[in-house]
Amino acid sequence: MLDLVLTLQCPDRPGIVHAITGAIVEAGGNITELQQFSSPDSGEFFTRIQLDAPDAERLRDAVAAATAGFGATFEVHGSREPVRTLLLASKAAHAVNDLLFRWRGGELPIDVRGIMANHDVLADLAGFYDVPFTHRAVTPETKADFEAEVRRVVEEQDIELVVLARYMQILSPELCAFLAGRAINIHHSFLPGFKGANPYRQAHTRGVKLIGATAHFVTSDLDEGPIIEQNVVRVDHTMSVAKLVRKGQNQESQTLAEAVRLFAEHRVLADANRTVIFR
Amino acid sequence: MLDLVLTLQCPDRPGIVHAITGAIVEAGGNITELQQFSSPDSGEFFTRIQLDAPDAERLRDAVAAATAGFGATFEVHGSREPVRTLLLASKAAHAVNDLLFRWRGGELPIDVRGIMANHDVLADLAGFYDVPFTHRAVTPETKADFEAEVRRVVEEQDIELVVLARYMQILSPELCAFLAGRAINIHHSFLPGFKGANPYRQAHTRGVKLIGATAHFVTSDLDEGPIIEQNVVRVDHTMSVAKLVRKGQNQESQTLAEAVRLFAEHRVLADANRTVIFR
Amino acid sequence: MLDLVLTLQCPDRPGIVHAITGAIVEAGGNITELQQFSSPDSGEFFTRIQLDAPDAERLRDAVAAATAGFGATFEVHGSREPVRTLLLASKAAHAVNDLLFRWRGGELPIDVRGIMANHDVLADLAGFYDVPFTHRAVTPETKADFEAEVRRVVEEQDIELVVLARYMQILSPELCAFLAGRAINIHHSFLPGFKGANPYRQAHTRGVKLIGATAHFVTSDLDEGPIIEQNVVRVDHTMSVAKLVRKGQNQESQTLAEAVRLFAEHRVLADANRTVIFR
Amino acid sequence: MLDLVLTLQCPDRPGIVHAITGAIVEAGGNITELQQFSSPDSGEFFTRIQLDAPDAERLRDAVAAATAGFGATFEVHGSREPVRTLLLASKAAHAVNDLLFRWRGGELPIDVRGIMANHDVLADLAGFYDVPFTHRAVTPETKADFEAEVRRVVEEQDIELVVLARYMQILSPELCAFLAGRAINIHHSFLPGFKGANPYRQAHTRGVKLIGATAHFVTSDLDEGPIIEQNVVRVDHTMSVAKLVRKGQNQESQTLAEAVRLFAEHRVLADANRTVIFR
Repeated sequence: MLDLVLTLQCPDRPGIVHAITGAIVEAGGNITELQQFSSPDSGEFFTRIQLDAPDAERLRDAVAAATAGFGATFEVHGSREPVRTLLLASKAAHAVNDLLFRWRGGELPIDVRGIMANHDVLADLAGFYDVPFTHRAVTPETKADFEAEVRRVVEEQDIELVVLARYMQILSPELCAFLAGRAINIHHSFLPGFKGANPYRQAHTRGVKLIGATAHFVTSDLDEGPIIEQNVVRVDHTMSVAKLVRKGQNQESQTLAEAVRLFAEHRVLADANRTVIFR
Repeated sequence: MLDLVLTLQCPDRPGIVHAITGAIVEAGGNITELQQFSSPDSGEFFTRIQLDAPDAERLRDAVAAATAGFGATFEVHGSREPVRTLLLASKAAHAVNDLLFRWRGGELPIDVRGIMANHDVLADLAGFYDVPFTHRAVTPETKADFEAEVRRVVEEQDIELVVLARYMQILSPELCAFLAGRAINIHHSFLPGFKGANPYRQAHTRGVKLIGATAHFVTSDLDEGPIIEQNVVRVDHTMSVAKLVRKGQNQESQTLAEAVRLFAEHRVLADANRTVIFR
Repeated sequence: MLDLVLTLQCPDRPGIVHAITGAIVEAGGNITELQQFSSPDSGEFFTRIQLDAPDAERLRDAVAAATAGFGATFEVHGSREPVRTLLLASKAAHAVNDLLFRWRGGELPIDVRGIMANHDVLADLAGFYDVPFTHRAVTPETKADFEAEVRRVVEEQDIELVVLARYMQILSPELCAFLAGRAINIHHSFLPGFKGANPYRQAHTRGVKLIGATAHFVTSDLDEGPIIEQNVVRVDHTMSVAKLVRKGQNQESQTLAEAVRLFAEHRVLADANRTVIFR
Repeated sequence: MLDLVLTLQCPDRPGIVHAITGAIVEAGGNITELQQFSSPDSGEFFTRIQLDAPDAERLRDAVAAATAGFGATFEVHGSREPVRTLLLASKAAHAVNDLLFRWRGGELPIDVRGIMANHDVLADLAGFYDVPFTHRAVTPETKADFEAEVRRVVEEQDIELVVLARYMQILSPELCAFLAGRAINIHHSFLPGFKGANPYRQAHTRGVKLIGATAHFVTSDLDEGPIIEQNVVRVDHTMSVAKLVRKGQNQESQTLAEAVRLFAEHRVLADANRTVIFR
């Protein structure tokens, strides 16, 4: 028996859960976990089903047949198949180090195929974890080349997830479109609080009592993509901008790792500009 | 159409979800929310389904027929039907005040039918909320009478939930057995940390950095019933026992209110000495 | 011996703590708690000292003499003297109920002298707590009268703190100026995230994973006054705007109560547009 | 000017703060941060003062002279002098990896002089961070040798802090005594909840809704030393013991790192079996 994950979404209609579960019975499957949600805003139905079944293809066929009339889109994944992942980075090590460590520790069901950076400072770290590392300065002149290279790697290696682990560069609208729904960014602020540059300085000036981090899908609308995960931590008047940065980096690492885990376990579905998260 | 909640549990077997959802289709129902869980420890299957259906009785019949072979026990409730509730209290007002206020504000789907206390200090508060209030000193001599009166009220008023809102008295094993699965206590500590009396003093002596509260089902094994909800709050060395008490009372009120809400929305199922909570 | 609180601020200079503690020794006082902070941003020194001393006037004289050369401003309060407080409210009961309950329970060292509202729905609640209650519709025509009345009450009763407990009306710049540094508002959002009206709807549309509340000093720059306290709570995609409101109201009540407690215990000092909080 | 930290404790008496701040003035110092606490339980006075001064020795002399009559013990440290640290480890990498990464990132003012382990699995990690690594199986026969070696390293390298980063072995009473006040352990549970072995299994069996971690000083009374820091995280019924372990390890790493930071910044003072933490 295989341990599979079925995710499916379609316009909500009576009988949809019964149709899906019928297909599972027919494919010889046994449900171990099921979550579903009907969005009153979009009228869309979402489900994530974890199940044991003898054959993934047979399950796909049964679900396709049973849900043909519902206009459903669905995916079936092996729950232990690691998600092919590419990291984009710059100089900051904390988020990359955290992802690599958790991956190697078996906490994240991903397979990090490479790190592409616009600086070389993370080369040793990548080497320690045996991950291919390439770097190249990103300037107005070279940006298109860098992005073309990202695209080539994504296509050649069949990358399923691109993680901007404090990459610090804005992606072109074309690359955003190409990576739609499969690129996650960590914004070092509790959105929509402090968008743009230097959020820790902004937070310090404003004298806030909590700072946070937001992991979201990348869209061409900067810092406005669908939110996957957010965290905050308490701060106070004694903390300099440097201390806020340090406190915030912990939040960034954890928030990004959690978003990557949710994605890699196929727990994140898109509902227009919002996300449905089946924890 | 009625807005109904179906909760069901039985030994886990393939096909159970399909059988239940088939019964719902047959009864003309449409699922709006479904959660399920199969316990690898007990081998038990649990589900909570919220649905629109034309008739509760017809749904009950369909589910009974479809799940007869599975050894299932199930309940169907109107999701807006308030749960008939009795509060047991003593002198402390915070938990009672919080429950009454949230109830009147529409936050808790309960109907508080009465407050029974071993002191009279909460009489005014009960009066303000128009809740019948009775009090009677509980001593070794009168305890059996008090408990008999609780039992009488539960039976006459068909009480579904008894809440020990800092009642401070230990129930007899007989009353525990009578109220099994329908009485919730708030323990003013983060169990299993500090059982028994004066947990705040224990916490102070031990110099802990967090204190908490635990809402749990009442069993004859004191402070050991299945846990429904827990919360903690940060404390420090400057805080006296009195300050810990004050901080802790906020946790007690919120934790108890959350446990009552979960119960009254039929989100709490029992899995031996653990709880399954469908949030 | 009296239990006193001394708060003082002045431009930072070497020797200031020694000068102050010398004055305390001279006035026969014994320090039980001392906190200080030098702001690297504003170059200002802040301290809060709790002490036992035989006489408040003698302490005032000694501190005035010792700090004359430092350009200090300071206050001495009896630590158990309740702060004279006026509540402004509208229809929402949660924040008002919470403040009144905590006040009566001895948790907040305030004395609620009255509630002024633009609706009459809280009259019974005020009555239960024996607090004078006045109400008067606030329209463009009557707003100036209402505010003049607030001003009259503040002056006649020597009110030290005005709490906007979900008052829902914007104060005129004149009233803001009159109440500068002694009026606290609760904003039903995690500022600076969602300013203005309907923050819960904004939060729902944006699909955030945390919502919060912010207590801040009232200034004429709406929702931009110095922040005193903030809290957040986790939310998810299943929650309607109504549920967000309910979850958020808990945060509002607690956040406002905490800000009032900090103010009433003389733990909040102003550092330009930021606050120094001595917890 | 040097940036120094003065920590001092003595029986509480009026005038102590004035005496200390006088010594600082005399030594040409300027206070930038001061915290103090008088314990009503033990009658002990504690303070931590951060200051700029021209000379550490001159400050020591001035403080010694001024506080001679108070029976004070005190220490003066350069606030940027890293604390010489030795790690004891076993097979688990998470806590060690986290400490090394934060140290190298400049977050922890420590200097990791070595890692001693009873297994060799962390050798590569130590190598990556250029930290001397020794390992040796610890059995009833070799334990005394291992501990003698720890003692030798501590003495030869003048180690100020020993961190048990999931070392998993119980130290002998002799070594506990030798390291008293300078050895920190991370217990993978929210003490005093689940002492001893397999706390995650205990937590799972009990069905708790929160799990946590506790960093505490090592004493011969196992899991009972003075607590420095604690954290918890929410868990639910769906989580296996393995998932609890994974969630808990995040808490362990963070809690231990925070305790090490507090110690290395001289923010932890001992008040009998409790700690005074000046954050």
